[in-house]
Amino acid sequence: MKKIIVIGGGTGNFVILRGLKNYDVDLSAIVSMADNGGSTGILRDELGVLPPGDVRQCLVALSNSSRLMRSLMNYRFENGNLIGHSFGNLLLSALEKVTGSFEKAVEEAGRILFIKGKVIPVTLNQVHLKMILNNRKVLENEGEIYLCQEIDQGYKSIYLEPYPKVNPKVIDEIMNADLIVLGPGGLYTSLIPNLLVEGVAPALKNTLAKIVFVVNLMNRKGQSTGNKVSENLNELVKFIGEDVFDYILVNQSKPSEELIQKYSEEGDLVENDMLQDERIILADLLGPLAIMEKNDIIRRNLIRHDSKKLAKEIIKIVNNI
Amino acid sequence: MKKIIVIGGGTGNFVILRGLKNYDVDLSAIVSMADNGGSTGILRDELGVLPPGDVRQCLVALSNSSRLMRSLMNYRFENGNLIGHSFGNLLLSALEKVTGSFEKAVEEAGRILFIKGKVIPVTLNQVHLKMILNNRKVLENEGEIYLCQEIDQGYKSIYLEPYPKVNPKVIDEIMNADLIVLGPGGLYTSLIPNLLVEGVAPALKNTLAKIVFVVNLMNRKGQSTGNKVSENLNELVKFIGEDVFDYILVNQSKPSEELIQKYSEEGDLVENDMLQDERIILADLLGPLAIMEKNDIIRRNLIRHDSKKLAKEIIKIVNNI
Repeated sequence: MKKIIVIGGGTGNFVILRGLKNYDVDLSAIVSMADNGGSTGILRDELGVLPPGDVRQCLVALSNSSRLMRSLMNYRFENGNLIGHSFGNLLLSALEKVTGSFEKAVEEAGRILFIKGKVIPVTLNQVHLKMILNNRKVLENEGEIYLCQEIDQGYKSIYLEPYPKVNPKVIDEIMNADLIVLGPGGLYTSLIPNLLVEGVAPALKNTLAKIVFVVNLMNRKGQSTGNKVSENLNELVKFIGEDVFDYILVNQSKPSEELIQKYSEEGDLVENDMLQDERIILADLLGPLAIMEKNDIIRRNLIRHDSKKLAKEIIKIVNNI
Repeated sequence: MKKIIVIGGGTGNFVILRGLKNYDVDLSAIVSMADNGGSTGILRDELGVLPPGDVRQCLVALSNSSRLMRSLMNYRFENGNLIGHSFGNLLLSALEKVTGSFEKAVEEAGRILFIKGKVIPVTLNQVHLKMILNNRKVLENEGEIYLCQEIDQGYKSIYLEPYPKVNPKVIDEIMNADLIVLGPGGLYTSLIPNLLVEGVAPALKNTLAKIVFVVNLMNRKGQSTGNKVSENLNELVKFIGEDVFDYILVNQSKPSEELIQKYSEEGDLVENDMLQDERIILADLLGPLAIMEKNDIIRRNLIRHDSKKLAKEIIKIVNNI
């Protein structure tokens, strides 16, 4: 059985894992641990736990339990002191307290949700993501970076504080994989935070696994505005230290002008300037615009990858290795 | 397979169910819905849910899942806005919101916890327990009744407000049982609140099932101070309207004087004044004094029934029917 690992965090991770779940592959999700927004941020502050939000999304994506259980994990309390907390976050935080370890908590939650594969936090250290812009503004955490609309004016540095040790299981996964998938996902909020963990970049350089970059459909406004495929690729290469990518998967179907217009406030489409590069794989990866699920994962962006189409292309790649 | 149903709530229910779980019987727990203390009270107030606390204890007692899962259910958050909430209560409340029904929530939680048997809320109405004392003091809810130390000075009435309809499943259970167990448990806070629900007392009068009263080891101070077995029995008979009991199970072993002294602040031992009554079954039912578990269920009272001894006597009774 081919071994695929997906590195990311957030919605992008959810979309790709949900698709890959249906194939007969050995699947692992490596998850960024920099999230500090909303319910996750409150739990980190008040309970001192590691951030559950991105892990919860991966667990739900890989879950083979009932639709009810998946709804439960994403259910957010609507009143009182619990307002805004998703139940899945509370589950992970309570499990962390009971087991004494976030890693065990994730494993146990995986059992409860009958997940396919594994979900592995990239580090088990408490970290905060920081970014210093060219204008000397300091963005104090992932939440601020996510909302910032002047990153495309240039930044001096992005780093995790304190500098974290990699979860050793992550290195094992990277070294033993057949295919490693980076993306889709926010460059500065989901993908790069994984590359900033000590040991991840060297492992990506040393592994014999093939590595595919799934290019985002859109640049997030004020973050990577106007970036073409090569520029998004180079952002990752900068943090890995070497162009390790064997494949670059790019969507070739175009949303309607109307939709692009509608979403111009969110960002612009990523243009493909690497058509001549033999690593480029073009495919129709666009999701159905009508899909609106009740949980908070899906609602954020209508122009997004289709789980099934994306997974199908990834499987084609891994089957040809 | 013999069908046993246990009617109660709180710690007493937990102790007897935990013992009966290990026998090959068809087991159901009918649970009082008057709890409004602590985490349960906050969830009722803030989220408008039905009270999860007593149900959670029954689910844990009947659970065949791992020790970790049982610890998780009883885990109480220790900081921040979540402080004091037990995870199991949050699970039941979130499930109630997601499924739209407390009954479905209890069923689903039962599946998650691999419980043996069934846990059935006595009513699905939102109710509050009220008590009016002879001195005209009004106790507004179960929490106040639990803490009151002047109930033994006499009360005018105890009732649920608004007057609730019985959960129809409860009547089915009562009518189809081989043995019905009332007790152990707080008279005014766990046992009588079940009898105050419309339809429960008539069913107990009409069923062909045998009915056993498990007499408490101790009178709670200021509640039933000095009550002998007959007086405790008569309290229940008053609310049922008829002496329906076929067996009265009474502990015959005596705790050390030292321990009785130590617990004199909590209450006094119930004296057996019915030795001549042929329904009396005497047995050593006293629990090991050293058992202190990490969860909040067990710590409350050191003089309490032993799960195994109690279950063994109940099974003897049901096997002789």
